[in-house]
Amino acid sequence: MTTLVADVGGTNTRVAIFFDEDMTPTSVRRFRNAEFASLEAVLKQYLADLDGVSCSAACVAVAGPVRDGIGRMTNLDWVMDGATLCTATGAAQGFVINDLEAQGHALDDVDTRCVLGHGRPAAATSTRLVVGLGTGFNAAPVHPVEDGSEFYVVASECGHASMPVQDQTGLDLSLSLRKAHGFASIEEALAGRGLLAINAFVAAKSGAAPHDSTQDLIAALSGTPTATDTATAGLYCQLLGQVLGDLALVHLPWGGIYLIGGMARAMSPFFATHGLSDAFHDKGRFSTFMDDFAIHMVEDDYAALTGCARYVRRHS
Amino acid sequence: MTTLVADVGGTNTRVAIFFDEDMTPTSVRRFRNAEFASLEAVLKQYLADLDGVSCSAACVAVAGPVRDGIGRMTNLDWVMDGATLCTATGAAQGFVINDLEAQGHALDDVDTRCVLGHGRPAAATSTRLVVGLGTGFNAAPVHPVEDGSEFYVVASECGHASMPVQDQTGLDLSLSLRKAHGFASIEEALAGRGLLAINAFVAAKSGAAPHDSTQDLIAALSGTPTATDTATAGLYCQLLGQVLGDLALVHLPWGGIYLIGGMARAMSPFFATHGLSDAFHDKGRFSTFMDDFAIHMVEDDYAALTGCARYVRRHS
Repeated sequence: MTTLVADVGGTNTRVAIFFDEDMTPTSVRRFRNAEFASLEAVLKQYLADLDGVSCSAACVAVAGPVRDGIGRMTNLDWVMDGATLCTATGAAQGFVINDLEAQGHALDDVDTRCVLGHGRPAAATSTRLVVGLGTGFNAAPVHPVEDGSEFYVVASECGHASMPVQDQTGLDLSLSLRKAHGFASIEEALAGRGLLAINAFVAAKSGAAPHDSTQDLIAALSGTPTATDTATAGLYCQLLGQVLGDLALVHLPWGGIYLIGGMARAMSPFFATHGLSDAFHDKGRFSTFMDDFAIHMVEDDYAALTGCARYVRRHS
Repeated sequence: MTTLVADVGGTNTRVAIFFDEDMTPTSVRRFRNAEFASLEAVLKQYLADLDGVSCSAACVAVAGPVRDGIGRMTNLDWVMDGATLCTATGAAQGFVINDLEAQGHALDDVDTRCVLGHGRPAAATSTRLVVGLGTGFNAAPVHPVEDGSEFYVVASECGHASMPVQDQTGLDLSLSLRKAHGFASIEEALAGRGLLAINAFVAAKSGAAPHDSTQDLIAALSGTPTATDTATAGLYCQLLGQVLGDLALVHLPWGGIYLIGGMARAMSPFFATHGLSDAFHDKGRFSTFMDDFAIHMVEDDYAALTGCARYVRRHS
């Protein structure tokens, strides 16, 4: 079975071909969305470049809400649905899913390492939670069905829910995000631009100069951080711990929480030293209950593409 | 098919018998948990009172987390699992599920009325969200599977997640709840005792006397409320709107949000006049996105028992 898979992000779209379970490494291409009028145009260009590979199914992961099989993104006016995919690729079957949903489908195919908690292997019947932390924030529960031989990944837009606030510093940060964006969402605090916003907030208080880029700040944290850098990482890890704790109570992922994305990878070295665990457990009489949830890191750049291919195998 | 169903709450357990799809009204009994050492003892008493009805299946809804088929409640040391149910009742099949999960399974069997939003009938394939608001707070998404002919209800403990805070008043309330309970959860703010806590908080600011009971306060709101009463209802409805908005973004219930429970019924007359809609839509660039979610009221005291019976039919 030949499957075309694509991962449509805010800036770029990556496309690849899978033969049965395996991605063809030489088939991976990246396209700048701004250079194309539609997803159809991207896929036609891709297939032309590959001299017309014939595929039987196509699946696209979209970094935005998918409703009734139609994907939407706030910064793109592309129509993304199954019929469009079939027209563009000649495939008989076309699927559009949320990108985090795709990551959820890949969870059995990727290596992980435990960064918080017990790290016991998950029972096949346990719910897991994928959390994407990069240029955006989102989380998708992965529920096993049919005794764990299959699973059901649920779409979400939880990154746009309220950022938790526990104290005056949190409220001040929340109010500054509201001033800038109209609302203090989880994403505005924890995505890449969130770390920079937190740094600007902390720097303004201490009178220090903020960093110009997320990369600069992360590099400083790995080298000789200033007190402002350390406070930034502390506030970030504390907020992330609170958010992950809330999501654990919402979804009950006894099978673990799986972090994915560039920001998760970049900030994970600071979790243990900057208070993530304390914030995760700060739930009053439910504090010990939180011990039942472990947090793991996923490090696989192609997880969304792998998830698309697996989704097609599960739904064909 | 004869099914024994039970709803184990914090104080009482209600038990009933269903023949196929219908509850036998004369079979409903209520037991005070404090008078029994175990659920087994309640069920044996119930069956003895009914002169030994023979049932083929049993299902219990528990107001607490259910993990791997075992139900737990913070204030009871009862062991609740399928095997115990079978031993106590002589049934061949026993199931323990979360109470809100049970309510979710009943959603097709109960009448509802729209209290916010478009009120269009849900597509069979749309996710719905049941929100229980009474002596506790919880929410369970109801996902259609197999093209809507079946559905999958997911357990949660989201009432113990962080109460949202958007401004100084919210933070002050949150800090007062943290002082009293170690953590400011959604449940501590929005369950029955939450309304009283909000009233005490507002009254302390205005120098007025707080109400002694939730019933008193609700009666005052329906009569000639003081400024303090009105401010209490306003803060409550605002918080509820924020929480429901966040849960809508987490679960994407295009099929609607369904409120269940005594507090939802008591406070729903004040939703329209006390700012619930504004708070629900207060999501920055996602404000118009919120129009896609409608909020409905469910008024059926037996919904959890009905849901248990339906669960058994779906899983036998």
